[in-house]
Amino acid sequence: MAKVGVILSGCGVYDGSEIHEAVITLLALDRAGAEVVMMAPDVELAVVNHLTGEPVEGATRSVLEESARIARGNITDIKKIKAADLDALMIPGGFGAAKNLCDFAFTGPDCEVNPEVARLVKEIVAARKPLAAVCIAPALVARVLGKEQLPHQLTIGTDKDVAAALTAMGATHVACPVEELVIDKENKIISSPAYMLAGRISEAATGIEKTVAALLEMI
Amino acid sequence: MAKVGVILSGCGVYDGSEIHEAVITLLALDRAGAEVVMMAPDVELAVVNHLTGEPVEGATRSVLEESARIARGNITDIKKIKAADLDALMIPGGFGAAKNLCDFAFTGPDCEVNPEVARLVKEIVAARKPLAAVCIAPALVARVLGKEQLPHQLTIGTDKDVAAALTAMGATHVACPVEELVIDKENKIISSPAYMLAGRISEAATGIEKTVAALLEMI
Repeated sequence: MAKVGVILSGCGVYDGSEIHEAVITLLALDRAGAEVVMMAPDVELAVVNHLTGEPVEGATRSVLEESARIARGNITDIKKIKAADLDALMIPGGFGAAKNLCDFAFTGPDCEVNPEVARLVKEIVAARKPLAAVCIAPALVARVLGKEQLPHQLTIGTDKDVAAALTAMGATHVACPVEELVIDKENKIISSPAYMLAGRISEAATGIEKTVAALLEMI
Repeated sequence: MAKVGVILSGCGVYDGSEIHEAVITLLALDRAGAEVVMMAPDVELAVVNHLTGEPVEGATRSVLEESARIARGNITDIKKIKAADLDALMIPGGFGAAKNLCDFAFTGPDCEVNPEVARLVKEIVAARKPLAAVCIAPALVARVLGKEQLPHQLTIGTDKDVAAALTAMGATHVACPVEELVIDKENKIISSPAYMLAGRISEAATGIEKTVAALLEMI
């Protein structure tokens, strides 16, 4: 049974993991018979009111505790997980991937990646195990691998500014429609735009389901 | 295009909507081409830490704002929705259905149902429009219809105590395995156990996908 790590970043598109992307990922992995290892960094997030889309001044929550909502409590601090524990790794999107796993949403191509997230991504790629990143999560992958001077291909869909930021960090950006995916065979890295482009949940689901199938195929 | 209301009750299995059940519901409805109208009551919930499963003393959040995380902001106060606006109604589970939509988790068969939730359930059944309730959500349906002296059939799976509570409120309980559903043709009410019994997300998904298909078939 393949053991696949899933990095969560909170619970809600504006300040955490995109919930639809995360659940579709978990369902596709389970239906394929994979064992899922859910994890998140033990850091704080700045709360956004999802009814208004506005930040809640001064309010913070634990990324690990909020991610546990998606995981139904079955989640581990990422610092306890090594690449040797996994056959593959997947990172759903949502602003949490760009605010809590790294600070790309605030600092763009100069972003810093959470040290434990960066460590695990580097370990996985170095171990030649497959890695999938969905929606905006490829931004942190680009930053980690760019710093390692490793040429690689990724997509965040078709947004020109975000694509330019990925290029600035050292990735080769490949434009991609919502229901498709980009595969970097050399590095075993898969990416799909999901809600970077999706207008409805079924569009995001099609791309994510293909991504999960490709990820498991590569193990 | 069928217009289906979905009542959310927060965001997280222990104090809100069960996230997997809610997302699987939204995806199945979208894939079937239905238009989804997400709603929640504007009340407070008592926060549970999903990492530990323990209540967070004194902490509350807005059910409407937390439900908006699952809805990506696209959600309405249930008091603004009438049965005439919908072709069908569906209620995912999670403790939120038994703590925030009613207080069944605390008071059992003597529970009170949120007045706006009770109103909409009564309106839908009176209008002969189909209603689906998943996981523990059938408890509130039993309470609403029991008070109306309307004989009806429901399932919450196989838990004898919860089944007895449904019977006490006026329902006929029908035991049901996790990947199946119970259809009360007379009243156009469908129910499926989901995480009342599911050990994994794919089991819950199979029952919920069948429930959505049956709901749309009945319109």
